[in-house]
Amino acid sequence: MKLVFIRHGFSEWNAKNLFTGWRDVNLTERGIEEAKSAGQKLKDAGFEFDIAFTSVLTRAIKTCNIVLEESNQLWVPQIKNWRLNERHYGTLQGLDKKETAEKYGDEQVHIWRRSYDISPPDLDPQDPNSAHNDRRYANLPKDLIPNAENLKITLERVLPFWEDQIAPALISGKTVLVTAHGNSLRALAKHIEGISDADIMDLEIPTGQPLVYELDDNLKVISKRYL
Amino acid sequence: MKLVFIRHGFSEWNAKNLFTGWRDVNLTERGIEEAKSAGQKLKDAGFEFDIAFTSVLTRAIKTCNIVLEESNQLWVPQIKNWRLNERHYGTLQGLDKKETAEKYGDEQVHIWRRSYDISPPDLDPQDPNSAHNDRRYANLPKDLIPNAENLKITLERVLPFWEDQIAPALISGKTVLVTAHGNSLRALAKHIEGISDADIMDLEIPTGQPLVYELDDNLKVISKRYL
Repeated sequence: MKLVFIRHGFSEWNAKNLFTGWRDVNLTERGIEEAKSAGQKLKDAGFEFDIAFTSVLTRAIKTCNIVLEESNQLWVPQIKNWRLNERHYGTLQGLDKKETAEKYGDEQVHIWRRSYDISPPDLDPQDPNSAHNDRRYANLPKDLIPNAENLKITLERVLPFWEDQIAPALISGKTVLVTAHGNSLRALAKHIEGISDADIMDLEIPTGQPLVYELDDNLKVISKRYL
Repeated sequence: MKLVFIRHGFSEWNAKNLFTGWRDVNLTERGIEEAKSAGQKLKDAGFEFDIAFTSVLTRAIKTCNIVLEESNQLWVPQIKNWRLNERHYGTLQGLDKKETAEKYGDEQVHIWRRSYDISPPDLDPQDPNSAHNDRRYANLPKDLIPNAENLKITLERVLPFWEDQIAPALISGKTVLVTAHGNSLRALAKHIEGISDADIMDLEIPTGQPLVYELDDNLKVISKRYL
C-alpha cells in the first residue's frame, strides 16, 4: 500500500512572512514550480494514483491539481475536505511573524508555534475573516469550526478523515495522494508513525517534496522516504 | 435552480486541426485564457457554486479548475466522470480533418460530423490509443467503453449521469457547474430543452462562454442565456 504526502509550496503569505492558518491565500510562482517539480518526480518514478485527497484551501488544492497534471493523471478522483486544512492560527492569522514576536515576545510565540497542546488566542467568530463567515464551511455544525488550534486539536479533527476515507482507500488497495499543509500532514505522520507528543514538533516535512510511505495490511509503516 | 455549462476552449489538437474525441490533449494558452475569462464573468455575476461536474479528459478538468480558481471557489467539490467525455470519434481520432475530407470525401465526413445517429468507423480496442488500454477506464465493464459514437449514443451514456448526479444536485437546491465538451453538452442541452433529433445538430455551444439555465422544480427550462 502506497501513500504519498505533499506539503504545498511557497504561498503569498509565506512571501510576506504572515501567519496563514485557515486564511485562503494562493501559491506564488515559486510554489507553482515546487508543485510542478513534485509532479515530475512522481511521473519519473512511475506513480499511478487511484485517488487524491486535499484540503479546502486553494494552495493545497492547486498543488494537487498541478501534481496530477504534471504526472499525466489529472483525471484521478479528488476529494477536498476541511479536515485536511492547515492548523487554525487564531488571532495570529494575517499578522506579521516578526511584529508578533516583538509584541508578545519570542518565547510566547515559540510556545504557540511549537508546543503540542497550547493554542494561540481564539479568533472572534464574528470576525469577517473567521471561517464562521465563509461559505465553504456553511454546512458544518458550528461547534466543529475552530477559532484557534494547537497540533493536538489539529490531529483530533484530521483523524476521522484518516479513519473514514484515507485508510479505507489504502486498505482497498488504492495508491493514495494527500496534498495538504505543514501541520495537517505532521498530525497524520504522528498518527501513522506513532511519534510521541514530545517528538512530533521536531518533525519538519519539507515543502513540495513527495513523502512516500509503504504500509502493511495493518497500516504499519514498512518504509518511508522522500522522492 | 441554476445550472451553468462551459465548453472547454482551444486545445492542442484544435490548433492542429485534428479530430480529438476521447484522446486526452491539453488546452493551449488561448484555451487557458478562455477559461480564465469565463471564471471572471461568473465571479462578476456573483455565481456561487455548490458542486462542479466534469469529464475525465484533461482539457475539461483544467477548464473547471481555472474557472473555479478565477471565481475564488476552487474549494467547491468536483466530480470527474467518463460519462461527460466528448463524443468518441472512432478511427478518426488523431486524423487531420482536411486529410480525412480528402480521403473519404466531404459528404461522408459531413455525415459523420453532423448526422444524429451515424457513427464513424470503430477504433480497434487493441489500438494503443483505445480507451480500452487507458488506466482511467480500467474499472468500467468492457462493453461500456465505446469504440466510436454518434450523438445519439453520446446522449444515451450522458443521460444516466444527468439522472443520477446532476439532476439530484439541482433538485436539492445546489447551484451546479458542468464543464465539458461540444457534444456531451449538446447531448445534455437536447435532453433539458427537448430539442428534436433533426434540430440538435444545428445547436452550437460556443467555447468558454458560460451558458446559464434557470430551471423549475421539474427541471423545465425557465430561462437560458450566455453570460
